[in-house]
Amino acid sequence: MADFLTKRKDNYAQWYNDLVIKADLAENSAVRGCMVIKPYGYAIWEKIQAELDKLFKSTGHVNAYFPLLIPKSFFAREADHVEGFAKECAVVTHYRLRNKENGKGLEVDPDARLEEELIIRPTSETIIWNTYKNWIQSYRDLPLLINQWSNVVRWEMRTRLFLRTAEFLWQEGHTAHATKEEALEETRTIIDLYAHFAQEFMGIPVLKGYKSESEKFAGAIDTYAIEALMQDGKALQAGTSHFLGQNFAKAFDVQFTDKSGKLEYVWSTSWGVSTRLMGALVMAHGDDNGLIIPPNLAPIQVVIVPIYKGNSQLDAISNTAVKIKSDLEKNGLRVKYDDRDTHKPGFKFAEYELKGVPVRLAIGPRDIENGTIEVARRDTMSKEIIDISNTTSHLNRLMSEIQKNIFAKSLQFRNKNTYKVDTWDEFRDSIQTRGGFIQAHWDGTAETEEKIKNETKASIRIIPVEDTGEEGKCVYSGKPSKQRVIFARAY
Amino acid sequence: MADFLTKRKDNYAQWYNDLVIKADLAENSAVRGCMVIKPYGYAIWEKIQAELDKLFKSTGHVNAYFPLLIPKSFFAREADHVEGFAKECAVVTHYRLRNKENGKGLEVDPDARLEEELIIRPTSETIIWNTYKNWIQSYRDLPLLINQWSNVVRWEMRTRLFLRTAEFLWQEGHTAHATKEEALEETRTIIDLYAHFAQEFMGIPVLKGYKSESEKFAGAIDTYAIEALMQDGKALQAGTSHFLGQNFAKAFDVQFTDKSGKLEYVWSTSWGVSTRLMGALVMAHGDDNGLIIPPNLAPIQVVIVPIYKGNSQLDAISNTAVKIKSDLEKNGLRVKYDDRDTHKPGFKFAEYELKGVPVRLAIGPRDIENGTIEVARRDTMSKEIIDISNTTSHLNRLMSEIQKNIFAKSLQFRNKNTYKVDTWDEFRDSIQTRGGFIQAHWDGTAETEEKIKNETKASIRIIPVEDTGEEGKCVYSGKPSKQRVIFARAY
Repeated sequence: MADFLTKRKDNYAQWYNDLVIKADLAENSAVRGCMVIKPYGYAIWEKIQAELDKLFKSTGHVNAYFPLLIPKSFFAREADHVEGFAKECAVVTHYRLRNKENGKGLEVDPDARLEEELIIRPTSETIIWNTYKNWIQSYRDLPLLINQWSNVVRWEMRTRLFLRTAEFLWQEGHTAHATKEEALEETRTIIDLYAHFAQEFMGIPVLKGYKSESEKFAGAIDTYAIEALMQDGKALQAGTSHFLGQNFAKAFDVQFTDKSGKLEYVWSTSWGVSTRLMGALVMAHGDDNGLIIPPNLAPIQVVIVPIYKGNSQLDAISNTAVKIKSDLEKNGLRVKYDDRDTHKPGFKFAEYELKGVPVRLAIGPRDIENGTIEVARRDTMSKEIIDISNTTSHLNRLMSEIQKNIFAKSLQFRNKNTYKVDTWDEFRDSIQTRGGFIQAHWDGTAETEEKIKNETKASIRIIPVEDTGEEGKCVYSGKPSKQRVIFARAY
Repeated sequence: MADFLTKRKDNYAQWYNDLVIKADLAENSAVRGCMVIKPYGYAIWEKIQAELDKLFKSTGHVNAYFPLLIPKSFFAREADHVEGFAKECAVVTHYRLRNKENGKGLEVDPDARLEEELIIRPTSETIIWNTYKNWIQSYRDLPLLINQWSNVVRWEMRTRLFLRTAEFLWQEGHTAHATKEEALEETRTIIDLYAHFAQEFMGIPVLKGYKSESEKFAGAIDTYAIEALMQDGKALQAGTSHFLGQNFAKAFDVQFTDKSGKLEYVWSTSWGVSTRLMGALVMAHGDDNGLIIPPNLAPIQVVIVPIYKGNSQLDAISNTAVKIKSDLEKNGLRVKYDDRDTHKPGFKFAEYELKGVPVRLAIGPRDIENGTIEVARRDTMSKEIIDISNTTSHLNRLMSEIQKNIFAKSLQFRNKNTYKVDTWDEFRDSIQTRGGFIQAHWDGTAETEEKIKNETKASIRIIPVEDTGEEGKCVYSGKPSKQRVIFARAY
């Protein structure tokens, strides 16, 4: 089955696309730029959702739901926001179809034109702040710590499954605070939460920092981001947390009475991660045999495959397999016993490798005789025979070992592909031949940033939050620089 | 606080609207017909989702996600479906806005007109069957048992929070089968599942049956439904399960090779429940003091309110309250300790009554001395003092008692408001003065059904699945009838 996959070294982009489709994660739909998320892909997304939702709730957030459709005029209220979001979007202009006069098909009913066009939300700051206006009068109404799980639409011209689609699924947090300090703290709490999730659940190390002026969210004062390195040496922005200052409060006139009785504009944040994380998961860990899913997010953590000839062998093996499955499930593991008689073991092995199931157990008649079982790890592709009575304790240990190993491997890869660069020649050369993260000095101007991007396609991914205090000279202009920033080509 | 609510007997519709808004379940948004589901309302919906999702998965279903936008031409493929759904809908015609020449606001860019208009899904049969076409070749690919949690838009002219909104949240199951029998069995499995959910979790007794030709889903062969009776004597359709025959398979040309090698069209079902269930929950159980939420769906099952003067009393009470909360939570209960010093106990009592929290515990200094605690039930509004050491066991018992009592009360109400009627005068009189469910004979024609509806606003809610075998004469036409059917005025 792995033969069907393009090799990473031959064509990384094609390998990615092949893998997403062949591992049954997602496919393109009949609607340009919109994907179908298939059951196996959706099951991984459900795990991501469930774990993030727990983290949000444990930090005091609640969920709510705001409308899909936003009046056109709402976007015009915040000057930067409108430039960033209101342009390439899905516009609802009518609310009725009618039969064509010739009886062949449907057409838009010209009498059913909306007075004001509605935009399918590309992000919900505007409709939410228009709502918060009625919810916030006094400091007693603050903070509001609200998250929404939803779909959004951005009319992207070039789309790629999970990485950039016209419609995607995401969560968007929108919080309101009485003070600047509290809003800033929330912004940082969330970027820390995202980094924790990426590392502990997705097994992906991330760099944390804030964005340059030109890369930040349209409407934000500051955007914090986590950035991960993919195996082709390109960076992927995996989550963002925005400090919005009082911008949206002013745009929607949301004021509150503070403790001293004074009217003040509310401070706010917004933050989100999306189905793009699915793309990161595939690209960070997958290999030429398929996906590698970290146990913490795997819908199936262990698959049991029987090796048999004839029904009586199968019966004996099934007895044992069903018992093992039940023991493992009692220990909280997610287990599948695949006793389909329509496919041979070799086919099944390749299928679960393709799908990235962390551990495969195989049991044959010999194992039944000897009281043994074969344990194969997807991350290392290593096999061992263990005493069958040790299966549960062994697998519990293995799950956390695999989770750690997947992270360690990614971290090692990132460390190997992070370069400190001090000359422009080396910068250009490094980006072109090796990719990866480049730590370089930058003079802090948008002009230099743009020139670097035009010449190398590398952008500033993040400005590290923890300033190393190392001053230097800009790698491009030679002007003074206060700290190194992280450059990379990016998805 | 309850004084703010309109009384049910004064104006039931106004009571409902007041309650939804004042209990913080939902509110109208700036977009016509679209609601904002507020955190407390959404928390109940999340419980509904979680419990239904478990039931779906335990019956072999998986989740997936299909596009929000559907090409206009897809709707024209199934003749009945297009009449039912493609007319009143949100139509996306453009994919870009631009700044107006005068610099004031945004306008649709006429150059960005879509070649084919896209419809925001009112339901997803068409896009899903267009997708299934590529997933199904052989009987080995069947059955497909897929569910989707999503938002849909239907351009309703008269909207009411939860009951009828332009955008609503729902789940829609779409299954594909090799045989008619299997698809029929799935249709019935799901309507049984919905009935089980309504009764065991929502505490609402439902009638189960199928719809008349004129009431069934546009595109279905048969529609099964569950119908609940609200306190104003009107029926509410709470869930539907459709046997679609081969209609959509034929419309989208989805054939499979059966075991004998013959090409056959696939059989299918679809089924759904929506945020309308929230409306049912409010209307079935609420009273003039507010909501009554069954413990199985309550985001907060128990609230603890301290009664104190001064900080030293509060400290002593808090010690005990925090311990009780922790004990209850260890037993799986969802508990809130409300020690806000900004509101008096009386205010809090009214607030949690309004919000329908099943049990309120109150602790004062006397209770600390005596080792007692006051337990108040929302469903019966009764209070008792118990020994504080018995709190956990008492509350565990109470939760299941309250759940049962809420259902029993609803069942009693429905039984009291279900009438066997055999003459037209009595029918008309009964519907007008008493409402409720009417069991009456019907001649089986759409003509009679329509006349009855025109004269009384009562429609056939369901035709019972279990035929009683009692023949009779149609209450309207006097023609022969094979069984009684259920009439009511409905939401």
